[in-house]
Amino acid sequence: MKEIKIFSPASIANLSCGFDILGVCLDKIGDEITVRKTDKKGVTIKKVLGESLSTDISVNVAGVSAMALLNETEVDCGFEIEINKGIKPGSGIGSSAASSAGSVFAINKLIGEPYTKKELIKFAMQGELAASDSKHADNVAAVLLGGFTFVRNSEENDYFKLNTPIEIAFTVIHPKIELKTKDSRAVVKNQVPIQKMIEQSANLGAFISGLYTENYDLISRSIKDVIIEPLRSILIPKFDEIKYESIKAGALGCGISGSGPSIFAMSKGIPTANCVGEAMKNVYQDLNLEYDIHISCVNDKGIQILNSK
Amino acid sequence: MKEIKIFSPASIANLSCGFDILGVCLDKIGDEITVRKTDKKGVTIKKVLGESLSTDISVNVAGVSAMALLNETEVDCGFEIEINKGIKPGSGIGSSAASSAGSVFAINKLIGEPYTKKELIKFAMQGELAASDSKHADNVAAVLLGGFTFVRNSEENDYFKLNTPIEIAFTVIHPKIELKTKDSRAVVKNQVPIQKMIEQSANLGAFISGLYTENYDLISRSIKDVIIEPLRSILIPKFDEIKYESIKAGALGCGISGSGPSIFAMSKGIPTANCVGEAMKNVYQDLNLEYDIHISCVNDKGIQILNSK
Repeated sequence: MKEIKIFSPASIANLSCGFDILGVCLDKIGDEITVRKTDKKGVTIKKVLGESLSTDISVNVAGVSAMALLNETEVDCGFEIEINKGIKPGSGIGSSAASSAGSVFAINKLIGEPYTKKELIKFAMQGELAASDSKHADNVAAVLLGGFTFVRNSEENDYFKLNTPIEIAFTVIHPKIELKTKDSRAVVKNQVPIQKMIEQSANLGAFISGLYTENYDLISRSIKDVIIEPLRSILIPKFDEIKYESIKAGALGCGISGSGPSIFAMSKGIPTANCVGEAMKNVYQDLNLEYDIHISCVNDKGIQILNSK
Repeated sequence: MKEIKIFSPASIANLSCGFDILGVCLDKIGDEITVRKTDKKGVTIKKVLGESLSTDISVNVAGVSAMALLNETEVDCGFEIEINKGIKPGSGIGSSAASSAGSVFAINKLIGEPYTKKELIKFAMQGELAASDSKHADNVAAVLLGGFTFVRNSEENDYFKLNTPIEIAFTVIHPKIELKTKDSRAVVKNQVPIQKMIEQSANLGAFISGLYTENYDLISRSIKDVIIEPLRSILIPKFDEIKYESIKAGALGCGISGSGPSIFAMSKGIPTANCVGEAMKNVYQDLNLEYDIHISCVNDKGIQILNSK
């Protein structure tokens, strides 16, 4: 194999109750990344379409993660990367994760898969570190493993997939304001009252139980964030109204996607997710603010190969 | 039915990663409680065997929880309670929970079961409040529901059973120093660093995933407490050594049982739990300190009826 083209999907991190722990992989929206072998060693980013991003491999996260992999791996060739960005940077649905994970996934395939998908997470995380000054694995784990994913401990490379109830569907609204992950992380306080910690972790545990037992009511009761959301949601226009209307329209729960500004709602079934999308549009219709809405099932496979030669 | 005799078992709360959230019901060790209907209304505690505890119904937790139930329930008789304490008060394996839950379970049976076991939890919690100034449901939920239990939100009466991997076995050592729950709660700090919160809740979520997927390795990696144990363990003689030797003897994990001073170790299989018990004994053999050791499977049924007439 000399060349591979992949689809690297968007993802939602945190899911209200699992800050830096939970992630879920989305369908349809994502980056297309082509990687081909070159005789000349090293990595070059040939072009980036769709968004104006640097092609410098020490700045573009796809280059950063690729170099992290190649620094630990002996190869006798180089790689040329083309990225067609389908995800807007700073949108909060894993733009940097898709590119970081995508390039290492593709290179790993081209060199005969010396690493498992799980082992690729640590390289992809280097891209996340470059993008946000924070080494979090929640998005890249979701993109690489697919489905709902859990980060137990990124220092120990301890990640795993959770069960995915088949009917879960997401609605994501992306208000087109750019919110840098590092700014959004800055509002998070360093200390948490222990009662809030108990409440939040009880919701995390209950959410996970709900995924395994496919108990949608329990899932719904658990999509709560009493720690981060109150601090971050003020950065997002009409967050409370979007949340209220989404739940009124039938969503199981609603919260900030990753570090925002996107807002996700989780529903049982695509028809409800569509209704939730309409409700979100109604909230934003009188604002002079552009937005995108995405409706998605859970993508249980993660990154997909589009073609290779 | 005029009289009922029940066995109300011991329990372990917290299980390292689930402070005020997780509980598990034990086998063999527990209180025997007899309740009989009387013509005279109200509740009396006729006798308490095994331990010198008050028979005042506003002090003895079995009386407190019974009165909480009767205050919300119309009945045309009274109740006389006899308690044979098998669990030492202040041991950290749910002595107050066994009595609190036992009396309401028995009375509920005698009056034709107007409440589900889950609904009895809120009454039993009143006994816990009287015993420790803290309204926690983790032990009483385990005693009433059996198995591993989860408290999502006690204000919302939201409790449920988790899956129990069949081979899980517990070893509990009870060093005979009395540690009051309220004193043990006092050392817990009100604020938690957010990184510790993430680590702890990741372990809670991973532990629950491990229970559902019956993944003993994952369970073992998750029995960690980075928040409460470092503060409380200094109150327990040779805690670190007991923990070290238990894990060396094959335990999946080891921690403080509830608010201590008992220490639990969780193992795969009773033979390993027995080895862990021997290792614990070796640590304590040269101390001039009395202790009990209990080996137990998970009691998936909770309170049992011994006889009734």
